[in-house]
Amino acid sequence: MTTPSQVSQQLSTFFATHLPVTQFMQMDVEGYDGQTLILHAPLAPNINDKQTAFGGSLYNASVMACWGMAHLKTLEAKITCNQVITKANIEYLSPVHGDIRAICHVPNEEVVTKFIEQFKHKGRARITLHATIEYSGKVAVKFEGTYAILKE
Amino acid sequence: MTTPSQVSQQLSTFFATHLPVTQFMQMDVEGYDGQTLILHAPLAPNINDKQTAFGGSLYNASVMACWGMAHLKTLEAKITCNQVITKANIEYLSPVHGDIRAICHVPNEEVVTKFIEQFKHKGRARITLHATIEYSGKVAVKFEGTYAILKE
Repeated sequence: MTTPSQVSQQLSTFFATHLPVTQFMQMDVEGYDGQTLILHAPLAPNINDKQTAFGGSLYNASVMACWGMAHLKTLEAKITCNQVITKANIEYLSPVHGDIRAICHVPNEEVVTKFIEQFKHKGRARITLHATIEYSGKVAVKFEGTYAILKE
Repeated sequence: MTTPSQVSQQLSTFFATHLPVTQFMQMDVEGYDGQTLILHAPLAPNINDKQTAFGGSLYNASVMACWGMAHLKTLEAKITCNQVITKANIEYLSPVHGDIRAICHVPNEEVVTKFIEQFKHKGRARITLHATIEYSGKVAVKFEGTYAILKE
């Protein structure tokens, strides 16, 4: 049995090995408990002209929080696949004046089971996941992304 | 009269001065003729695990191409304002196996005139712009972003 801390470490290693932009952003896994994945990135490398977090960095943290959640669920199900993002939308509700923390909660079990079972039967499946970034106790960013997994 | 090449240079300087992520991405203005703005970023710093362009970098190039277009239109109209992104959506249609070129065409004159006039009357205005990224002659990414301008 792989623990949440081990799968979280695998995700961290994936970022460091394969995604140079995430390394410049100093994006890393803050925590994963099997239910909620939190990615963190400090403000400094992600700053914009208003001394708040750059909209592109807010997107990157959100897209990778959901990407990570989908990836962790495939690791936990011990399936090997290619995972790609197919579409996303994001709303910027208020500025983030500090570090970025993108939070993705696991969807309900039925959605995850359908995602994994569909892949096992058809060799491909899609899942839509949500992330939020809060600042000063309110939601600053709402993100929704759809991810596909395909046989390698 | 400010020439397209001068406003394009201003945008380039803005990226270099205010947005460290764009500098890591080596994102720069490839061209602007008053009608079409093209941003370019080489593959290497923007690569992913599949040796194609990272979805986050494709978003960043698109969001800044449209951001740049809106910004250039405010510079040309000689208005001073704060500009922020309010929402965006993106579709990833096929992978980009090389450099990123995000292309934003100016919307029709009526849309730009309304954007500028509304700002002059109300001190705030919104505009929705589109960008595409092509690879090997086909559209790989479709982006739509809404930007607000506000009195400083």
